[in-house]
Amino acid sequence: MVETIQWTTQGVVMLDQTRLPRETVFVTCRDYREVAQAIRGMVIRGAPAIGVAAAMGMALGAAGADPASLDAEMDHAAETLAATRPTAVNLFWAIERMKELYGRLRGRPVEEIRAALEAEAREMYRQDIAINQAMGRHGAGLVPDGKTVLTHCNAGALATAGFGTALGVIRAAVAAGKKIDVFAGETRPFLQGARLTAWELMQDGIPTTLITDNMAGHFLKSGRIGCVIVGADRIAGNGDVANKIGTYSVAVLARENGVPFYVAAPISTLDLSLASGDAIPIEQRPAAEVTHLFGVAVAPEGVAVENPAFDVTPARYVSAIVTERGVARAPYSESLRKLVVG
Amino acid sequence: MVETIQWTTQGVVMLDQTRLPRETVFVTCRDYREVAQAIRGMVIRGAPAIGVAAAMGMALGAAGADPASLDAEMDHAAETLAATRPTAVNLFWAIERMKELYGRLRGRPVEEIRAALEAEAREMYRQDIAINQAMGRHGAGLVPDGKTVLTHCNAGALATAGFGTALGVIRAAVAAGKKIDVFAGETRPFLQGARLTAWELMQDGIPTTLITDNMAGHFLKSGRIGCVIVGADRIAGNGDVANKIGTYSVAVLARENGVPFYVAAPISTLDLSLASGDAIPIEQRPAAEVTHLFGVAVAPEGVAVENPAFDVTPARYVSAIVTERGVARAPYSESLRKLVVG
Repeated sequence: MVETIQWTTQGVVMLDQTRLPRETVFVTCRDYREVAQAIRGMVIRGAPAIGVAAAMGMALGAAGADPASLDAEMDHAAETLAATRPTAVNLFWAIERMKELYGRLRGRPVEEIRAALEAEAREMYRQDIAINQAMGRHGAGLVPDGKTVLTHCNAGALATAGFGTALGVIRAAVAAGKKIDVFAGETRPFLQGARLTAWELMQDGIPTTLITDNMAGHFLKSGRIGCVIVGADRIAGNGDVANKIGTYSVAVLARENGVPFYVAAPISTLDLSLASGDAIPIEQRPAAEVTHLFGVAVAPEGVAVENPAFDVTPARYVSAIVTERGVARAPYSESLRKLVVG
Repeated sequence: MVETIQWTTQGVVMLDQTRLPRETVFVTCRDYREVAQAIRGMVIRGAPAIGVAAAMGMALGAAGADPASLDAEMDHAAETLAATRPTAVNLFWAIERMKELYGRLRGRPVEEIRAALEAEAREMYRQDIAINQAMGRHGAGLVPDGKTVLTHCNAGALATAGFGTALGVIRAAVAAGKKIDVFAGETRPFLQGARLTAWELMQDGIPTTLITDNMAGHFLKSGRIGCVIVGADRIAGNGDVANKIGTYSVAVLARENGVPFYVAAPISTLDLSLASGDAIPIEQRPAAEVTHLFGVAVAPEGVAVENPAFDVTPARYVSAIVTERGVARAPYSESLRKLVVG
């Protein structure tokens, strides 16, 4: 398995996801500004992976700072990383966790601070993989045997430190001996399904069929799909789920056809401070993502474009939310809080 | 306005829709085999336009045949044209209409037969435009003023001899003074929305915003969309509608959000011989349409693909069907039959 992100002595090394599946190219970020640029440019994407990248970016911030201006540099690193993408809450969660650690260490020898921040970022990387494996254990039982699983976007190893959230559940179901295959929606405009999910699952030998996003309804109606599993970028306190644009449509179509719709996400994706999904900020991305593909124009010059990168699926369409601490079901305002508080 | 299809002394001239919007190139079909190839290769597409093309192809069949083998050649032209695309019923309707005319003329001087078939094909072209304008008159009143109309695929001038079915209704609403704008779903995999609908509406100065197909649900939920209008490739006796893949999803999402979903189609698109949409054959198109865009690979080599070109929207999601003879509403098994029988 190719590594999505790694801490190395040269810097943070990321697999460039804008160039998959045609090229397997790695990018080395030597400071937090380069990490921020990689997140904004979607060299790395997926809420948990963005969280790990931000943590490593904060560690780079300490590593590269003049000891005399460490406070200011850490503030600036946090601000720069936080300004990259607004929707995935894991970004802010990871920055906050690193800021809190820095706050506790402030005044200690700079080498000790640097080592502690690096260790914390590497620990968050390791924890993310363990969290995904736990999600797989909790979620595998939900996947019907002998049917097709539909997923949208990429909530796989490439969207995390490894193993994946939605694809982690699928991997765990396969490992448990279930005979399943996957339908991957291509996920326009950025084609994470076509470029990343199909690539990842083919590497694992899990049978995968690529469809365009607008085919999801047709196949949900056909009776072939046993369940839908997707990831999440932010989950509000009431269970509303922000995820890649198109997720809401799949959720409605799943319910209309009696197919369970599952969300797999770590506790760090929960934002219980928000009463509902209406309060989740939705990133608007450049028009060129819609009008051009690999530099080729697919629409008339000058056409107006909307490009919201995410949508919000109301909790009533969500059959269950799989986390590393267990499976939450409606009413989510109770079940999610219970998982967080314990 | 650019002509979609024209009968000329050189042959049937078609605007090559595979190359829009980047190039405005015309293709001349000199015999029925070239017409069949153009239909199969989607140089021309859209149920009504395919019907007109097939009629002109039949006329070319008579024009190019050895008088001694005219019967056999007309049979072969009909078979060749009928084998191009299975879903749009207008194709078979047009071939049948030309075959019936030929049957009545059989035995007459070959020049008379050729002239009559050419005149019939040209008349079908003229009628198609008049039919679309009538649809516009009947449908314009359904379009809410001051809101956005969502459409899918291209049911415009490019899908017909001119004016369009769904876009004809939009054009008529604009001509009637309504302040509307259009959201065009890009319509993967062939991108008829991005390449054709956006291009056509921009030429007319109708404000148009391009979205990816998976954004339709998000905007239907937002309250911005006043109604959905699409065309159709075949409508069964009970009102089930076969149309471009993704139409079913839009219909479900429209109903879920209380937005009316209208279908605009000529009487020639009705297939009352079919009790329901389950009996409509759904064309499967090549995988390369999904995996490649303008020759560029967007998915891993060798990935499995499904590529149904159409889906079926059950009649219960259809708010009304606009035809040249008036507007049909549920129960469609009665209202459609009434429109046909008169």
